[in-house]
Amino acid sequence: MPSAYQQLTDVFTRLAHLDHASTYLTWDQMVMMPEQGIERRSQTLAELAALRHAQLSNDALGDWFDEAQATATGDTVASVREMRRQWDLSRVLPAELVKQQIMAGAKCEHAWRTQREHNDWDGFLVNFREVVALAREEARIRQSAAPDQFDTPYDALLDLHCAGDTSELISEVFTALKAVLPDMISTLSQRETTGAFNDNDHYPIEAQKALSEALMAQLGFDFSAGRLDVSVHPFSTGGRGDARITTRYRDNEFMDALLATAHETGHASYESGLPADWALLPVGGSRNMSIHESQSLLFEKQLLLAKPFLAFLTQLIHQHLPDSRQYDADTLWRHATVVKPSFVRVEADEVTYPLHVILRYEIESALINGDMEPDAIPTVWDEKMQQYLGLSTGNNHKLGCLQDIHWTDGAFGYFPSYTLGAVNAAQLFHAMTEQHTDWEQRFADGDTSFVRAWLSEHIWQRGSFLSSQELMVQATGETTNAQHLINHLRARYL
Amino acid sequence: MPSAYQQLTDVFTRLAHLDHASTYLTWDQMVMMPEQGIERRSQTLAELAALRHAQLSNDALGDWFDEAQATATGDTVASVREMRRQWDLSRVLPAELVKQQIMAGAKCEHAWRTQREHNDWDGFLVNFREVVALAREEARIRQSAAPDQFDTPYDALLDLHCAGDTSELISEVFTALKAVLPDMISTLSQRETTGAFNDNDHYPIEAQKALSEALMAQLGFDFSAGRLDVSVHPFSTGGRGDARITTRYRDNEFMDALLATAHETGHASYESGLPADWALLPVGGSRNMSIHESQSLLFEKQLLLAKPFLAFLTQLIHQHLPDSRQYDADTLWRHATVVKPSFVRVEADEVTYPLHVILRYEIESALINGDMEPDAIPTVWDEKMQQYLGLSTGNNHKLGCLQDIHWTDGAFGYFPSYTLGAVNAAQLFHAMTEQHTDWEQRFADGDTSFVRAWLSEHIWQRGSFLSSQELMVQATGETTNAQHLINHLRARYL
Repeated sequence: MPSAYQQLTDVFTRLAHLDHASTYLTWDQMVMMPEQGIERRSQTLAELAALRHAQLSNDALGDWFDEAQATATGDTVASVREMRRQWDLSRVLPAELVKQQIMAGAKCEHAWRTQREHNDWDGFLVNFREVVALAREEARIRQSAAPDQFDTPYDALLDLHCAGDTSELISEVFTALKAVLPDMISTLSQRETTGAFNDNDHYPIEAQKALSEALMAQLGFDFSAGRLDVSVHPFSTGGRGDARITTRYRDNEFMDALLATAHETGHASYESGLPADWALLPVGGSRNMSIHESQSLLFEKQLLLAKPFLAFLTQLIHQHLPDSRQYDADTLWRHATVVKPSFVRVEADEVTYPLHVILRYEIESALINGDMEPDAIPTVWDEKMQQYLGLSTGNNHKLGCLQDIHWTDGAFGYFPSYTLGAVNAAQLFHAMTEQHTDWEQRFADGDTSFVRAWLSEHIWQRGSFLSSQELMVQATGETTNAQHLINHLRARYL
Repeated sequence: MPSAYQQLTDVFTRLAHLDHASTYLTWDQMVMMPEQGIERRSQTLAELAALRHAQLSNDALGDWFDEAQATATGDTVASVREMRRQWDLSRVLPAELVKQQIMAGAKCEHAWRTQREHNDWDGFLVNFREVVALAREEARIRQSAAPDQFDTPYDALLDLHCAGDTSELISEVFTALKAVLPDMISTLSQRETTGAFNDNDHYPIEAQKALSEALMAQLGFDFSAGRLDVSVHPFSTGGRGDARITTRYRDNEFMDALLATAHETGHASYESGLPADWALLPVGGSRNMSIHESQSLLFEKQLLLAKPFLAFLTQLIHQHLPDSRQYDADTLWRHATVVKPSFVRVEADEVTYPLHVILRYEIESALINGDMEPDAIPTVWDEKMQQYLGLSTGNNHKLGCLQDIHWTDGAFGYFPSYTLGAVNAAQLFHAMTEQHTDWEQRFADGDTSFVRAWLSEHIWQRGSFLSSQELMVQATGETTNAQHLINHLRARYL
């Protein structure tokens, strides 16, 4: 008779195989699938999700968890804990609510694609009220199920994306950033910007692809265990043995593609570097989105834009794109570090980006905790944009509260991970460079192996054995601390 | 309470979704996946196969089948019949035998990859004896389960690939071909061959890809519902809404890639043209491999190599590959229709190919029916090669009985479909051109729409409602008849 723990790992191993299927079928849908494939693909992904849910939410696992928790020792303790977390999360919501959410979210997101184009806030609001009402209900149920764990309903949604990062911690981090960034931005945005690139520059896409692959190789990416493709929005999926990342190319500009490539290589390196022995179990998975985003931003903002590394990269660029030789490393660095307040989060630089996130965090936490109604969003959005970035959205909702997809299907609690990730990235990079004082020389030589080794030891190999904040404390000596991002931005920009 | 038929279609719809997942994950494995992805991918495909088997082989379906068979009318009769066929096929073998076959097949195939290189028949024989013993056991059990249906054990294996085409029919067809082809070949192989292409020809792969896509468009392929990629061995998978085909390119020769593209477009057109209303159920699937291969060979051999169409295609070739203008349509046609006996089936021309298949059919049917032992294969192979093609294999097993993968994992009963497909293709093409007497003019204009319309009506839209031979009778007035292939070959080559 197999042990309770063995029974559980058998179930979760089967779930890992179903997840593998969904992961690569979704990649295929985003990158390869012809348009008419969507109907059958959607049906199949729904079937796999239903199979997953049926296997995971099984009541029978309860006895196995009780027995496994009573007998677990060593690494198994965390393994049982993370399996149980998945089981609990899958069972807490009534099936009827989940179904209503899927339908309301799909309806709202579908209509949003048109409403955004037409700046139609009133039309959006009709669907969005339902999405918010259901998310509030979800948050209430999740908080009630674990009142000791969650101080507010919003904390219960945060737990789905930023598990371990509470609204108390986030508010502290964000308050520190708000105290510094607006002034820093008004100083920086008065500087004259001298970017590279002209409209008649032309960099062949095939050569840009080879350049991106050369950068990935320099960052330690193993092409026998992954690939690079093109998609409308760059993303990363898969992991150990088969990491798939995408970027996008523009004919007359090559820096954006390289930054996106470095960013996604960071995500992929994390997934590929997770502990092989635990690959099929939850405890072997990535910790949360704040940690995930710290890996991508560390590769993109800390590593690639470190002046010594960019100087090395500039040589690679000049080799692959002969026409780029008109731009030296300094010019490319200045181009990639222009600071300028703008309306759109995804186009924001690293100094203004946190304020876009803080604005969304303040609105979504108030929405979920019942301190604000959806109707008030445009006014509050405009006020905060003026206050934080000195820009008025007015009634241009397309560049304001209708710009993001996240809220349309109810993904509240995700936005903070972008800025927690930026803080964590600066904090981890600081700790790493304190231990590797020759980092600038190494970067100048294109050597990134010590970065991978350090991250592997302190983050990747730890999977989900520790909480996100335990992970940060063990790696850096402290919990997520805004001062590290502030120091980084001051050092780079002031 | 849903009807028994509804319960059954619910089960088979879920199976169709699992099949969709396996289909595109396998395509990804063949075309996109990096090498280190294989372990997790294999585990996932095994898990999906196990889920499929568990859902299909369920005893509980028996009562539903009994009730559905008693109440079915119209199209539903065939639908229930084809679902039941799947259910029966999935249940007839003991699980232990299936497991032994998978292990013995995997072991034999894995070792074969090296043994073939080393011409190691004796080493191969050790594993292969086990594969044959298990296949004989499978055939015996399948025949015992349906003694009225199968005259011989081998017929029960034929049923897995060429359902509806009995060994009696096959022997009749093959006897007719054997009576004619050896003489035809000895006449043709005395002719001087004047192929196109020189070693220093150079046709850029990107341009060849655009040419293949132009050919596919000319053959009616819809790129909003499918795509073309590259793989080591060309293949076709997927279907309606998302057909995936592959070809392969050589730098100094473009005809092979075009022929492979046409071949796979034929397979894909069949799968994409199956009845949409029955897409998720077995009766909406393709009939058998003899019919499938008839569609690919009709596109490749009958259509593309028809002189008027090749003349049209030559214009396309000249447009896409300016360096090809040194070769006119006649030269390309002669290049693609060289007849020459050779050792390797997959490289054989359409005149010698059937004899490669007949040789394998005679050996594998004798093996399975217990009329021959595996030890005798090399001797019999050599004798038949001399008799049919005038070539002696001697002890060169690499170019003889070790050349194919099929037998290594026990796929007996598949080979006949290649030549039944060639006969069916000639027979269908004959029937179609009798109705469309202006076919040569249409081909000269690049018009293939009437071919698709005719095949859609007579083959594609019929799914698995009819047996393979009923299908041939309704489309052409007779069962599979070797004379049509003989007439085609005489007309083209003599």
